[in-house]
Amino acid sequence: MSTKRVRVDDVRRFMKSCLTCVGAPSNHAQQLTDVLVAADVRGHFSHGLNRLEMYVRDIQNKTTDPSAEPTIVKETSSTALVNGNNGLGPVVGNFCMKLAINKASDAGIGWVVTKGSNHYGMAGWYSMQALEHGMMGFSFTNTSPLMSPTRSKGAALGTNPISFTAPAMNGDSFVLDMSTTTSSLGKIEYAKRKQEPIPNVWAQDDEGKPTTDPEVAFKTANLLPLGGREEHGGYKGYGLALMVEALCGISAGSHYGYKIRAWMGAGSVANLGQCFGAINPDCFETGFKERMSDMMSFLRNMPKADVNKHVLIPGDPERHSEQETVKNDGILYSTNQLLHYELFAKELGVEQLKSY
Amino acid sequence: MSTKRVRVDDVRRFMKSCLTCVGAPSNHAQQLTDVLVAADVRGHFSHGLNRLEMYVRDIQNKTTDPSAEPTIVKETSSTALVNGNNGLGPVVGNFCMKLAINKASDAGIGWVVTKGSNHYGMAGWYSMQALEHGMMGFSFTNTSPLMSPTRSKGAALGTNPISFTAPAMNGDSFVLDMSTTTSSLGKIEYAKRKQEPIPNVWAQDDEGKPTTDPEVAFKTANLLPLGGREEHGGYKGYGLALMVEALCGISAGSHYGYKIRAWMGAGSVANLGQCFGAINPDCFETGFKERMSDMMSFLRNMPKADVNKHVLIPGDPERHSEQETVKNDGILYSTNQLLHYELFAKELGVEQLKSY
Repeated sequence: MSTKRVRVDDVRRFMKSCLTCVGAPSNHAQQLTDVLVAADVRGHFSHGLNRLEMYVRDIQNKTTDPSAEPTIVKETSSTALVNGNNGLGPVVGNFCMKLAINKASDAGIGWVVTKGSNHYGMAGWYSMQALEHGMMGFSFTNTSPLMSPTRSKGAALGTNPISFTAPAMNGDSFVLDMSTTTSSLGKIEYAKRKQEPIPNVWAQDDEGKPTTDPEVAFKTANLLPLGGREEHGGYKGYGLALMVEALCGISAGSHYGYKIRAWMGAGSVANLGQCFGAINPDCFETGFKERMSDMMSFLRNMPKADVNKHVLIPGDPERHSEQETVKNDGILYSTNQLLHYELFAKELGVEQLKSY
Repeated sequence: MSTKRVRVDDVRRFMKSCLTCVGAPSNHAQQLTDVLVAADVRGHFSHGLNRLEMYVRDIQNKTTDPSAEPTIVKETSSTALVNGNNGLGPVVGNFCMKLAINKASDAGIGWVVTKGSNHYGMAGWYSMQALEHGMMGFSFTNTSPLMSPTRSKGAALGTNPISFTAPAMNGDSFVLDMSTTTSSLGKIEYAKRKQEPIPNVWAQDDEGKPTTDPEVAFKTANLLPLGGREEHGGYKGYGLALMVEALCGISAGSHYGYKIRAWMGAGSVANLGQCFGAINPDCFETGFKERMSDMMSFLRNMPKADVNKHVLIPGDPERHSEQETVKNDGILYSTNQLLHYELFAKELGVEQLKSY
């Protein structure tokens, strides 16, 4: 794959310009830019620049209100229901996570649910904010139907991610950020472009049978839940996705499951449900970070099944990617993607990305 | 498999007698009996009568104190740290779950972590208690190391279950109760007895390679995380197991991960960590149960991949098993298991199970 590098500051400048030129207030454009840049820096390219156009189109189509501020509908000492008022996902998400952390500071745990939200980028962006306060963090969102519940044909739940974070010593941490499907539509699209078969635990055809054909898988867009087929534990991934929906859309009274607009469906409001939690470990036994570090150290030093592959803690690959970005003084994008955004910049009248 | 039936009341009488005759106070024996009987009635035979001997031996060996009462170490309006004081798991679990529900009634959410606990039976027993109060429930426990973290050889985490429940209309509910491994040692043992190969996503050999040989899998006892191999998403199951450990042992300051005694290891105190949560959906948008029922109804009525298999909601198979038990006026056990407990009853001097 042919790639070129772009300095992080320039990516940031470009994203913010694209968002402000279609009407996002500076402060809101900054919040969305921050989560998109972080995704690319952490190696989650599907959730970075790759999604910028989608956010811009949602603003242009007036399906997202870039100026809207979230409001608290009701609250207790440790919970809140928020209305995102159809604002930008990260504006809603940052508001909710901050509220959860504040409540956890006072009550030990904070649990905040929002309706009226939009795509909020990578789920881990919010749960990681808890780490800065020495807390554990949770972040969940519902998404457009792309997963086939076990035994079904058709899609009824999203890739509904679970993110959980826990702090360890010296800034180290455990950062889980996973979809509850085995794979993603993005990975299937990538296999399709390369014309390579996909593992038979990623997706179903329209008869509800596992397929290895990326063309079929991409067209049907019926992802298998984590675990894959029923006999391999796929019903557990399905159960986790339904748990996320109960915590998000069912709790929030937003759209949920089959009621959410189709993936990349423009024209209608997303009205997503999201859920954020913060837990202060000081409420339990002292020495949380020390134990977390001890456990992580044990895991990282376990005997390896393949001598070339270290045992990792969730979050380690992203940390490595961050270090590479700093070392290389920039983010590597495919030339195809850069070409796409060259045209996009022209359309918007925004200064081009400076790749080299 | 040759089976015989035993009336539920007689199973209850038998279990309670075995526990009281080795020194458990009546009230504590009753609590342990209730969760074991519920497991068998719900079709989770691995967690019912099958485990009775283990609990009795732990009492006989003085590795569990059947008289111990749990105590609150510290608490806030919505959290608590409990010390199980090495009491029976269900005595500790019931205490903690009740506390979590009480806190959720006042503060909206209750989050209770315990150290010094023992095996508490099926995780869903506790999360289901939230349903009776119209709440969502969480229950997590760490367990003896049986799972190989992705890329490792050797085990460092348990089957660390996640249970989550959500209430729906007319007593209907969603009950997720899953280990974070693809399969269980019990299922491997069953395949070993039948001399049938196992799917290659269940377990590893001692070189860290997936195996289909149940003899090897049982001996190594290195279960693969949910998802199986790394390329099939197994790193997500590993991440979920580590999340459970962070919420349980790492929070509680009990044993955790590699520090927990070996599975079926007698002689040393278990000192398990467990975590219980209750969330009052009234803190969020009204109509939670209606939305939950609507979502569940949509899922149950989805087009089927196999015309003979309905799409299920987690908890449906257990509900069906409960109905069968009532209809059949008893629980079906294998004659092998009944023979085993015939000898056990003789050893303890307890009146035999009446099978027919």
